[in-house]
Amino acid sequence: MSQTLPKTKSFRWKKTSLQLLDQRLLPQKTVWITCKTWQSVASATREMVVRGAPAIGCAAAYGVVLAAKQKQIPQALKGLLAARPTAVNLQWALERMEKIHNNFGMQNADCGIKEDINKKNQKSEIAALEAEAIAIETEDRLSNQSMGRLGSDLLPQNAIVMTICNTGSLATAGLGTAFGVIWSAHHAGKLKHVYALETRPYLQGSRLTAYELQQEKIPFELITDSMAAHLMKTEKISAILVGADRIAANGDTANKIGTYSLAVLAQHHEIPFYVVAPWSTVDLRTPTGQQIPIEERSTKEVLEVQGKSIAPKGARARHPAFDVTPSILIRAIVTDRGVVKPPFSNNLRLQHYRGPFSTLHS
Amino acid sequence: MSQTLPKTKSFRWKKTSLQLLDQRLLPQKTVWITCKTWQSVASATREMVVRGAPAIGCAAAYGVVLAAKQKQIPQALKGLLAARPTAVNLQWALERMEKIHNNFGMQNADCGIKEDINKKNQKSEIAALEAEAIAIETEDRLSNQSMGRLGSDLLPQNAIVMTICNTGSLATAGLGTAFGVIWSAHHAGKLKHVYALETRPYLQGSRLTAYELQQEKIPFELITDSMAAHLMKTEKISAILVGADRIAANGDTANKIGTYSLAVLAQHHEIPFYVVAPWSTVDLRTPTGQQIPIEERSTKEVLEVQGKSIAPKGARARHPAFDVTPSILIRAIVTDRGVVKPPFSNNLRLQHYRGPFSTLHS
Repeated sequence: MSQTLPKTKSFRWKKTSLQLLDQRLLPQKTVWITCKTWQSVASATREMVVRGAPAIGCAAAYGVVLAAKQKQIPQALKGLLAARPTAVNLQWALERMEKIHNNFGMQNADCGIKEDINKKNQKSEIAALEAEAIAIETEDRLSNQSMGRLGSDLLPQNAIVMTICNTGSLATAGLGTAFGVIWSAHHAGKLKHVYALETRPYLQGSRLTAYELQQEKIPFELITDSMAAHLMKTEKISAILVGADRIAANGDTANKIGTYSLAVLAQHHEIPFYVVAPWSTVDLRTPTGQQIPIEERSTKEVLEVQGKSIAPKGARARHPAFDVTPSILIRAIVTDRGVVKPPFSNNLRLQHYRGPFSTLHS
Repeated sequence: MSQTLPKTKSFRWKKTSLQLLDQRLLPQKTVWITCKTWQSVASATREMVVRGAPAIGCAAAYGVVLAAKQKQIPQALKGLLAARPTAVNLQWALERMEKIHNNFGMQNADCGIKEDINKKNQKSEIAALEAEAIAIETEDRLSNQSMGRLGSDLLPQNAIVMTICNTGSLATAGLGTAFGVIWSAHHAGKLKHVYALETRPYLQGSRLTAYELQQEKIPFELITDSMAAHLMKTEKISAILVGADRIAANGDTANKIGTYSLAVLAQHHEIPFYVVAPWSTVDLRTPTGQQIPIEERSTKEVLEVQGKSIAPKGARARHPAFDVTPSILIRAIVTDRGVVKPPFSNNLRLQHYRGPFSTLHS
C-alpha cells in the first residue's frame, strides 16, 4: 500500500496540536499553521486554511481531541459544526466524536462520579477521542483507495477526463475522491489526459489540483470554467469526475459552485457524469438537494483574485460557494461501499443497510 | 439623440492619429495610447488594447487612413486583417476601405496616371478613406441604437438578464450590442437586474462591463462564469443577452469563450438566448460555425490574472478565446436590420436581400 500514499498532505496530527497546510497560499508558498485549540481549528476551517469535505471532517475530529484537553467539548462540537455549513462530513465526524464523549459521560454517570471527572478519566477520554479521530482519518484514506479502484474501472482505455475544484490529497486524508480515481486510472495505464477547471472564485483547480497533478506526473491542462462546454464539443471527453460536499437521500449532490453547470453540459454532450465521495458524504437524513444549506461566502473572493482587485470599486457581486446537481444528471455515485447507480433513492438506502464493508473489495 | 451617447469611449479619431483607450488597464487606470501608424493599430488590436468586434472594425478602418498617409495601404489591409482571426467585422470594415482604395486606383488608371499618383490624388484618397471610416463608426453607433430598441422590446417588464464579456461602448462605437439592449431596457424602465459574468480569462465582465454598468447606474451583480447555471436554476432569469464576433449563414454564432456554455444552460432552463450584433457581424460567406476560425491565445492569460501567477510553475493550459454556439440554441438574433428568428438560414438571407434600412425603424 505504501506506493499509494499521496505526495501531499493537508494536515498532520501531532498529539498536542494539529498542523494544517495553509492552502490559501499554495502553490506559491508552503506554510504550516499549528492549531493548539479547537477554536483555531474552527477559524482555520472557516477561513479555508483547510478545505475539502473529507479533510475538514478529519480536522474537526482532531479539533475535538484538542477541546477535550481544554475541557470544552460541548462548545467545540457546536463551534466546529458552525464553521462551514454545506459539507456534511463535518457533522458526520463530529457526531462520531460526540458519541465517544457521551459514552464517557454515561460511564462516569454509572459510577456516580459524573460531576467529578478525575484526571484519569479525562486522560482515557482523550485517548478514546484520539483513537476515534485517527480511525476517521484512516478510514478516509482507505476509502479513497477503494473509490479509486472502483471509479477507474468505469473509465475506458485512453480516458480523457474533466474535473473541477480540488479533490485530491489536499481535500482528503488520502489520495482523494475524484482525484483518487484519476490517480488510479493513471497508474492502471488507462488515463490519457486531464482537463482541470481552474474553479473560480477560489481557484482550487489552478492552485491545488494543478499542483497535485504535477506532483503525481499526471498529464493535464488547466482551463477556465467557461471553456468546459467548448472542449466537450470539440474534444472526446470520456467522463466528468467530481467530488461532493453532501449527497442527499435521493442522490442530489452539493459540490463546489460550477459542478451543476458541468453536469448540465455533460448531459447535453452525452458524457457520463460521476460523483466520487466516501460514504460519510451521503446524508440520508437530508431528503433532497433542496434541503442542503448553500454557503454564501464573502463577495470579496469574487471581486478580487489573490488579494488583487479585478473590478471597479464599489461593484457588487454574488458568491454562492456551492451548487446542487439533481440526481437525474448523475450517471453513478462512486463510494467506498460500491458504485451506486440510479434509482438513487432506492439504491443509496440499500447500500446504507448493507453496511460499511459489504462491497468494499468488490 | 444626445442623451443616448454612452459615457465611455474606446477610441477617438484625431485626423493624424487614432487614440485608443488601453482596455487592458481598466478599471484601475485610464490610459490613452496614440497610434500614428497602421502598424501600431494592428499591434494594439492583437494585444487587446482595443477589443470587441465592432470596435476593432472601426479601429482598423482608421488604421487604413493612417496607412494611406504612409503609402502602405496594401500592407495595412493584410496586416490589420491578420491581427485577430475570429471577428468578421475586421474583414468587413477592411473590405469597405479596400473598395474606396480600389476606386481611386481605377480612376487613376482611367486617367493614365496609375503609376504616378500625384499629391492631390493622395489627398483626395485620404479624404475619401477618412469619410468611409467615419461612416463605419457612425453607422455602428446608429445600429447600436436600433438594436437597443428592438432588443428591449423582446424583454418582459422587470427583466433580470445575464450577459457575458463586454459588449458596451468599450466594444463598439456607441452604446453597445447586448449592452445597448440592457441600456435601452433600463431607460425604458423595464430592467430589474443584470448578472454580469466576469468572463475569464480576460475578465472583460468584471473589468469592463461592471465599469460601464456602474457609469450608467444600472443595477447589477458580478458573478463568476461558474455561477451562471446555479442562478438560472435558483433565480428567475428573463433572458441571456450576448454579443457576437461572427454569425455564419446558418445562424451559428462565434462569441467570447463561455457563450456556448451559457446557451446550453439557457436551453436546459428554458430561458431565451438572444444574440445581439450589427449586420456587419453576419457573414453569409461562412456557411456554418464549423468554418469560423477560433483564435487560440496565449495560455499565459489562463495561468495568470493581471500579471500574477495563479498556477504552479510549468503548468500547461488551453486558451481558445472564442466558441461557437449552434443556431439551434439561439431564440433570435437582434440586428440593426431587425430581429431575425429561426429558421436562420432562410431568414438571414432574406434580411440580406432586403438591404440595410428596410426594418431599421420597424
